[in-house]
Amino acid sequence: MKVLVINCGSSSLKFQLIDAETEQLLFKGLCERIGIEGSQISYTATGKDKVTKVTPMPEHKTAVSLVLEALTESGVVKSLDEIDAVGHRIVHGGEKFTKSVVISEDVVKAIEEVSDLAPLHNPANVIGIRACQDLMPGTPMVAVFDTAFHQTMPEEAYLYGLPYDIYKNHKIRRYGFHGTSHSFVSKKVAEIEGKPYEDLKTIVCHLGNGASVSAVKNGKCVDTSMGLTPLEGLIMGTRCGSIDPSVIETLEKKMNLDTAGVMKILNKESGVYGLSEGISSDFRDLEDAYIKGDKNAIRAVDCFCYQVLKYIGAYTAAMNGVDCIAFTAGVGENSGFVRKLIIDRLGFLGVKCNDEANKVRGEEKLVSTEDSKVRVYVVPTNEELAIARDTYELLK
Amino acid sequence: MKVLVINCGSSSLKFQLIDAETEQLLFKGLCERIGIEGSQISYTATGKDKVTKVTPMPEHKTAVSLVLEALTESGVVKSLDEIDAVGHRIVHGGEKFTKSVVISEDVVKAIEEVSDLAPLHNPANVIGIRACQDLMPGTPMVAVFDTAFHQTMPEEAYLYGLPYDIYKNHKIRRYGFHGTSHSFVSKKVAEIEGKPYEDLKTIVCHLGNGASVSAVKNGKCVDTSMGLTPLEGLIMGTRCGSIDPSVIETLEKKMNLDTAGVMKILNKESGVYGLSEGISSDFRDLEDAYIKGDKNAIRAVDCFCYQVLKYIGAYTAAMNGVDCIAFTAGVGENSGFVRKLIIDRLGFLGVKCNDEANKVRGEEKLVSTEDSKVRVYVVPTNEELAIARDTYELLK
Repeated sequence: MKVLVINCGSSSLKFQLIDAETEQLLFKGLCERIGIEGSQISYTATGKDKVTKVTPMPEHKTAVSLVLEALTESGVVKSLDEIDAVGHRIVHGGEKFTKSVVISEDVVKAIEEVSDLAPLHNPANVIGIRACQDLMPGTPMVAVFDTAFHQTMPEEAYLYGLPYDIYKNHKIRRYGFHGTSHSFVSKKVAEIEGKPYEDLKTIVCHLGNGASVSAVKNGKCVDTSMGLTPLEGLIMGTRCGSIDPSVIETLEKKMNLDTAGVMKILNKESGVYGLSEGISSDFRDLEDAYIKGDKNAIRAVDCFCYQVLKYIGAYTAAMNGVDCIAFTAGVGENSGFVRKLIIDRLGFLGVKCNDEANKVRGEEKLVSTEDSKVRVYVVPTNEELAIARDTYELLK
Repeated sequence: MKVLVINCGSSSLKFQLIDAETEQLLFKGLCERIGIEGSQISYTATGKDKVTKVTPMPEHKTAVSLVLEALTESGVVKSLDEIDAVGHRIVHGGEKFTKSVVISEDVVKAIEEVSDLAPLHNPANVIGIRACQDLMPGTPMVAVFDTAFHQTMPEEAYLYGLPYDIYKNHKIRRYGFHGTSHSFVSKKVAEIEGKPYEDLKTIVCHLGNGASVSAVKNGKCVDTSMGLTPLEGLIMGTRCGSIDPSVIETLEKKMNLDTAGVMKILNKESGVYGLSEGISSDFRDLEDAYIKGDKNAIRAVDCFCYQVLKYIGAYTAAMNGVDCIAFTAGVGENSGFVRKLIIDRLGFLGVKCNDEANKVRGEEKLVSTEDSKVRVYVVPTNEELAIARDTYELLK
């Protein structure tokens, strides 16, 4: 079964074609600046050179049609009939979706109903679904939710200390995101360990431009650092993570801003970018500056690592112990530097870093020593493959 | 040296007279509803009956004058000359005050300068200082700050993931509160342990209507759960504690409120009071309801305990280990029920609850078993005594 995986943002569209039986990547690419001047599509058919075309994309439907055109033109498929299914990444499934589902009108309606919880993402996701429905009528489609994996969290983990009515009436609670990645990586850890998924306590550190930590106990997510939205939790590339809620009112007064103005700072100008006085939101730049002794980079990276450390401690407590810790996503997979700053402070858990192994970049690897009491892994995440797998499972 | 300890709120004034050499409490009481209809003063001279008088108190100066009158009338002192010093509890010392100081005009000015960080508290504290200056001219006074003990926190603990300019220009950072209590209790733990304060890693859980946790490593506070204001951190009586910062904007939209309206909910209608659907903000009521199986009480108390648990885990990580955990303040000292819910989940640290000892209420006691790897104590806090001690130390 050939599955087209679609990740539709407000002005971008990422896509991959995956052979779900062999799990081979056949084709991948990106449409950028949809609805904006200077839009372009770039793609790579596996084994061939990357192609980039600047071409107008007034709307998402144009982008999807260009993707389908590229698939046939590049010879990856002879006809669109060969695409057996489409898997869509959907950001917010609210409390309704606890796992992936085959898309029906009811499902689209339910995704639209929780759009107010993810106003930047869910409407774009629906546009992507509609565009595919128009251009590939009859091709079955599956929705895979960023929030679904976290729906197993107990009440003590998902409720905020707010009036219970606010939860009941407005569904304000912790949802968590990156669920596809946390699920994929925690399952992979069980596979590497050669143990049943249901017998392990694993902490997954998904550290990228967006970053979150989750606690997976006996095959179920029991807590995660992102909350109602992907703003909460760790310090991220440009997002502030957890702060005193009073900061918003204080900044409104001190900077003469409205709530939207403050939220823009918290989402776009904060994180390691803001803490480093604008050096970069990219950890590769920060790492270079850190090594050169730049105090702004040191401040930002140290604050970030300290937050990760505290979540590892908190989730060890939440699970009453931990067997494995996994690092994944851009920073987690590739920065031995950041990993070491964190791992070296986990002595209280009996963790020891294997400095040689920890040099690994983007490969599955045990990076703790043989006698470390908790095993620490690097596990590359693959959200697109996880989406293709779910799509295949539901439609095969 | 007889020290009058004053804790001045916006409409209340708590006071104690303490003999600083013998550390004996001579007199204590409370003025309520200052500036409001129906104001009253109540006080107890040690060994005598409690006296309550309903009497108009249009302003704080009237209240202070009534306190001084009561001191002589009750025979605790023959003349006001016997009061050697006044110790004032000041909520916010900003970054300026890292320890207690003798009050001068410069000090009052500095307290006023950080009033925007504690607009409900610091102005009231200054009013209390001014009233005492007017009525007891020449009596030396000391300011003891709730924030001072936490000023040893490293940058990684006190900085939020916000643009560094916002810290530099507006001093938006984690300050922490209940510092006098965290300092008093962590020192007391070292005393009980018979070890140098500088050699211990202690987590202090100050659990009352306001609640905070702190990590004290080698005699210095290295992290604490309250932040810019006393709203952050644990779920409290009516305060929400940490939430996704996006909750504020979402609630503004969903409930058609302005920021001040949302902040009122977060401060006054949330916490265990809100989570329990209004049963109570008092843990004694919640504990009774919990034991009877009331699901609203169970939800609120479980969420609260889970947060404390996660902070213990996080601060164990922050200090790379923990030697002692201390419970203090109203709930921490008196509720074996709440303590047990938390302690029983600390098995990963090698902690074992001594159920018999844990029945203790309001007394210094080891409540973990002899073979527990981390020692857990109940330590009654005494902020007034700590203020009297600091006052004595600075003036003797």
